[in-house]
Amino acid sequence: MTERLFTADQAATLDDILRWRRDVRHFRTDPVPAPLIDRLRQAMGRAPSVGNARPWRVIRVRDCALRAAVRAEFCRCNDLAAAAYDDRARADYLRLKLAGLDEAPEHLAVFTHTDPAEGRHLGRRTMPETLRQSTAMAIHTLWLAARAENLGVGMVSILDPARMVSLFSVPEGWEFSAYLCLGWPAFHDDTPLLHRAGWQENREPEWDER
Amino acid sequence: MTERLFTADQAATLDDILRWRRDVRHFRTDPVPAPLIDRLRQAMGRAPSVGNARPWRVIRVRDCALRAAVRAEFCRCNDLAAAAYDDRARADYLRLKLAGLDEAPEHLAVFTHTDPAEGRHLGRRTMPETLRQSTAMAIHTLWLAARAENLGVGMVSILDPARMVSLFSVPEGWEFSAYLCLGWPAFHDDTPLLHRAGWQENREPEWDER
Repeated sequence: MTERLFTADQAATLDDILRWRRDVRHFRTDPVPAPLIDRLRQAMGRAPSVGNARPWRVIRVRDCALRAAVRAEFCRCNDLAAAAYDDRARADYLRLKLAGLDEAPEHLAVFTHTDPAEGRHLGRRTMPETLRQSTAMAIHTLWLAARAENLGVGMVSILDPARMVSLFSVPEGWEFSAYLCLGWPAFHDDTPLLHRAGWQENREPEWDER
Repeated sequence: MTERLFTADQAATLDDILRWRRDVRHFRTDPVPAPLIDRLRQAMGRAPSVGNARPWRVIRVRDCALRAAVRAEFCRCNDLAAAAYDDRARADYLRLKLAGLDEAPEHLAVFTHTDPAEGRHLGRRTMPETLRQSTAMAIHTLWLAARAENLGVGMVSILDPARMVSLFSVPEGWEFSAYLCLGWPAFHDDTPLLHRAGWQENREPEWDER
């Protein structure tokens, strides 16, 4: 067992990566080299997980018909979401670009195994939710690792989880967590697109005290 | 809008932080300076969130009686979890140190607002789960920022979420997400404690392809 201390410069680097990470919806179409994909896969494997269970399951989607089916599902869910707003909010909503599905060279479908043998149930009896939290943290790990490599990730959640499970015919017990677009971003930006577009300002998070 | 590219050295720094982040259960008792707490709060505010909604709600727990009540809840849930294993696994389980509740100088109770006005429902109609994912990513952000400052975080999930909601008398619509111990770790380690203790080996994560 060795020791490891980080410097103020290294902490500042992490802060910069956090600050410049964005939900990317504008991609260039050039491919991501295989060794880079492999580094991202390894980084994701370093995410925290309850009981060291690593319940996330990642499918790299290359098949053209499967991608088209996901695209169709996104359109269907997006139309339903738009219909739920009143006229003015709907117009705002429809102006937002919410996914980079057409341009992003890499698509990853992420699922959570809700009853893995790994971890031996440690830490998840009272909170089975911890498995889904582990997957969310793994996605975030991939997001940050991609940003540090100057790649962009966009998380698409305007999808019906039950339909995604059937579309991918995943094993029993897998739940849909997210669909990720990955590639070189068309631009880098330190301000969330939804803030810039006037949809939702940044709210300063306060901590309560008891 | 400016550009920002990271260097290979900076990507390596992130990789080191990911590699040396641990679920810490062994803390020194010396306090965490207020400016550091503030930096962590700000870092957490940079986490991704669906619709830019930032649904996480953090309560810094200072009250001694409240901490004791959480400790009692942990003991109750931990005894129940231990009882569910057969004799040999139970002996292994009871040897694990699963929380640093007694030593950690800072305790944070984290909740998720399941219907915040912020975000205007964007991206969460088909997947309300995205709000909980946002909180998990915010916790992970805090975890990494703390590690880069050479602090440790331990996530305690051996708790009953309904009891935590009532213990903290949180507003309607808040769900319990996690209880975090924060402080200076007694040691730094690049190997998960559960791997080192023989509870769960590291499993190499594979990606499927379609």
